[in-house]
Amino acid sequence: MVKDPGRLVEIDVVDLRFPTSRSLDGSDAMHPDPDYSAAYVVLRTDIGDGLEGHGFAFTLGRGNEICVQAIRSLWPLLKGLVVDEVLADLGTVTRRLTSDSQLRWLGPEKGVVALATAALVNAMWDLRAKRAGLPLWKLLCGLSPEALVAEVDWRYLSDALTPDQALDLLRVRVPGKAAQEARLMESGLPAYTTSAGWLGYSDETVRARARDAVRDGFTYLKVKVGADLDDDIRRCAALREEIGPDRRLMIDANQRWDVGQAVEWIGHLARFDLHWVEEPTSPDDVLGLRAIREAVHPIGIAGGEHVQNRVVFKQLLAGSALDFCQIDACRVAGVGENIAILLLAARYGVPVCPHAGGVGLCEMVVHLAAFDAIAVRGEDPDRVVEYVDHLHEHFLDPVVVARGNYRLPDRPGYSTEIRPETLSRFRFPDGAYWAEDRGVSGQPGAATTTDADLEGAPT
Amino acid sequence: MVKDPGRLVEIDVVDLRFPTSRSLDGSDAMHPDPDYSAAYVVLRTDIGDGLEGHGFAFTLGRGNEICVQAIRSLWPLLKGLVVDEVLADLGTVTRRLTSDSQLRWLGPEKGVVALATAALVNAMWDLRAKRAGLPLWKLLCGLSPEALVAEVDWRYLSDALTPDQALDLLRVRVPGKAAQEARLMESGLPAYTTSAGWLGYSDETVRARARDAVRDGFTYLKVKVGADLDDDIRRCAALREEIGPDRRLMIDANQRWDVGQAVEWIGHLARFDLHWVEEPTSPDDVLGLRAIREAVHPIGIAGGEHVQNRVVFKQLLAGSALDFCQIDACRVAGVGENIAILLLAARYGVPVCPHAGGVGLCEMVVHLAAFDAIAVRGEDPDRVVEYVDHLHEHFLDPVVVARGNYRLPDRPGYSTEIRPETLSRFRFPDGAYWAEDRGVSGQPGAATTTDADLEGAPT
Repeated sequence: MVKDPGRLVEIDVVDLRFPTSRSLDGSDAMHPDPDYSAAYVVLRTDIGDGLEGHGFAFTLGRGNEICVQAIRSLWPLLKGLVVDEVLADLGTVTRRLTSDSQLRWLGPEKGVVALATAALVNAMWDLRAKRAGLPLWKLLCGLSPEALVAEVDWRYLSDALTPDQALDLLRVRVPGKAAQEARLMESGLPAYTTSAGWLGYSDETVRARARDAVRDGFTYLKVKVGADLDDDIRRCAALREEIGPDRRLMIDANQRWDVGQAVEWIGHLARFDLHWVEEPTSPDDVLGLRAIREAVHPIGIAGGEHVQNRVVFKQLLAGSALDFCQIDACRVAGVGENIAILLLAARYGVPVCPHAGGVGLCEMVVHLAAFDAIAVRGEDPDRVVEYVDHLHEHFLDPVVVARGNYRLPDRPGYSTEIRPETLSRFRFPDGAYWAEDRGVSGQPGAATTTDADLEGAPT
Repeated sequence: MVKDPGRLVEIDVVDLRFPTSRSLDGSDAMHPDPDYSAAYVVLRTDIGDGLEGHGFAFTLGRGNEICVQAIRSLWPLLKGLVVDEVLADLGTVTRRLTSDSQLRWLGPEKGVVALATAALVNAMWDLRAKRAGLPLWKLLCGLSPEALVAEVDWRYLSDALTPDQALDLLRVRVPGKAAQEARLMESGLPAYTTSAGWLGYSDETVRARARDAVRDGFTYLKVKVGADLDDDIRRCAALREEIGPDRRLMIDANQRWDVGQAVEWIGHLARFDLHWVEEPTSPDDVLGLRAIREAVHPIGIAGGEHVQNRVVFKQLLAGSALDFCQIDACRVAGVGENIAILLLAARYGVPVCPHAGGVGLCEMVVHLAAFDAIAVRGEDPDRVVEYVDHLHEHFLDPVVVARGNYRLPDRPGYSTEIRPETLSRFRFPDGAYWAEDRGVSGQPGAATTTDADLEGAPT
């Protein structure tokens, strides 16, 4: 009798929402009141080894239910597949999800379906790393150049990067990987903090948090701008005063400006010695970003957290529109598409400074940044990974940042797993938190809350 | 006692699917088996005048349920608003849908949420036109330049087109509008047909349908390409033979190629005297499309049916990447965003040749093309509107095409209304058609069908 191979048999999808809007954590010029949320997937097999894949897409609250529906709609493309075959060829499986002949009309490769794809693909990578007994970054660093290239969907990339060119890039790194890994285990990965500068914070809060950040060893700080020029000037002046002349200051406009307006506004802030301006305009505007970049030089342009796929990254990188490439763990089609983007950035010599924060983005991107630092781009003095001090306590394997550096994770998997008690408490709308909340106000999301309700989120 | 003003009170959302995959109508190189579908909205007020707004987003089948969910998720932003206020200021209402501070994370302005926005916004425009007692095109043509400019979301456009420049463009047309309308009522709008050249059709079918099209008066024909070069050469040769040297032949690759591959492939087909090549590569690749355009000149580049919003259209038009601008009625945020795109195309002198076919796209785009021809771009010998002979029988106000020209619609509204018996029969998965189908096969969408089931769709 032939033994049935283990198969993907089941997912749980959780609409998980945290009431972060109540303390204005995460507030910026376009998103004044986010409820940091995740369309969260638990992927199960019938192997019986107790291992599950956990993955999610990050959202800001309303609409998380659309991502949940999209994950359920994609699941039939995976259900019943043989686990060993899937995990050995995640490139093909990812392409199957992004290329379904009917579903692709909804994008292609963008928006809700891309977020849902990210959740499922990230869950599969988490499972693969757990089965290998390795943290994801280490699993990736152990793959051969040929195996890494096989994870990428090469469609639409050949005018900027071919598989052969990618192999060449990766092979250069192979001899130095072990030494670089040892170095990073020691030093960690440089982080910057956004936690001082949310738009909804008072000047006093901004100053106090900047002092905390300096004391904690951070040498890069980012502040949200774009709603009011006078406010921005006052805050940038205060921050520059707090951090001194040698630490780096970045600003983030979260897509607030038109092209000409961006150039003008940035001109008013240039005297604060800005390291980069993030998302000065629409993330879709390759030509606009390039025009801004040319006009505000030598201030750098950063972007990527809303860039929908590798095709737009290709243009931003090959078209000289970006100085800092901000990959996102959940916006594109998971790990495989991020490998493509890391390779493109290496090809064009643009440092990768991952977007993080939200729910669990720090936990995930540290894996991608470590992989980039060891096996793709290698050493890069401009690599700095965003850090936000939200919601880490809900994760089984939270990031550790010390003296302004991320420590490399050592538990098997992609660090995506959220505590079961959090999943049940913050499940929307029927988890205990939201049910109590509705009891108070008669309407979900309308009541005020206390620090204790936020379970450790900052105020 | 103050009388309550009429309000938006209710929507029905229908997951409507037609089993077009069974006859390979609509098949192309990336979408071999579409089930033409619509996430369909009926918008109701409490006014009691019997008028409803009908709108929808077009999809290819699987995933239509995600759009249905997204429409339901957007509806709370509209529910309870005063009808007169909403319809008098659809620009503001549309921007409210595209800019919700939490939902915008899912795009912004792209993918499923954009499709859902289109469905709702189109329904509101349909209601507005019905209340005015005018077909939509005539309502639009009657608006002042100032009123039209107020319908546009100008964010991110000012480096290419300002509201003042748009006013100038529109004012030039005002004196000639009445004469141009009279002319178009007489002549109609030139159409081209795609119905001869679906990828799944045999050579015999292609030839027979091309002869039919010529006999019906069409002077432009389009054929799907991109799966196999030898097939494409054979079909283009056959079509050129059937239509003779003077009629125009277009090819549509539906995003199949990389940039270099597109240039090479098109080179092999250039001898068939191609008017345009449609979607040679990813719709997201502004720089790639421009590179292809430069390489294959004087063959024109056409695209737009998958272009996600006005920001990408801006780049394609201002960046010299398109020769023919193919607006879509349901991909962007409805009528208002299409006004923006028509204005951008007029500004850059690029003819607008709307994408149609699918479910009801012909019915809708004829309104937008007539508006463009009368009030925006004016006369343009290169304007030609796609025509596909599918599914018109399900509409209350189906398009009429005679001697290769669309007649201008004369019933009030946006021609979006589908017959009630169609909505109940093809509602997925519980409408009579799908329920019977499931009864036969045990699984939705798996059984074969007969011509009668398709209610007049071509075989």
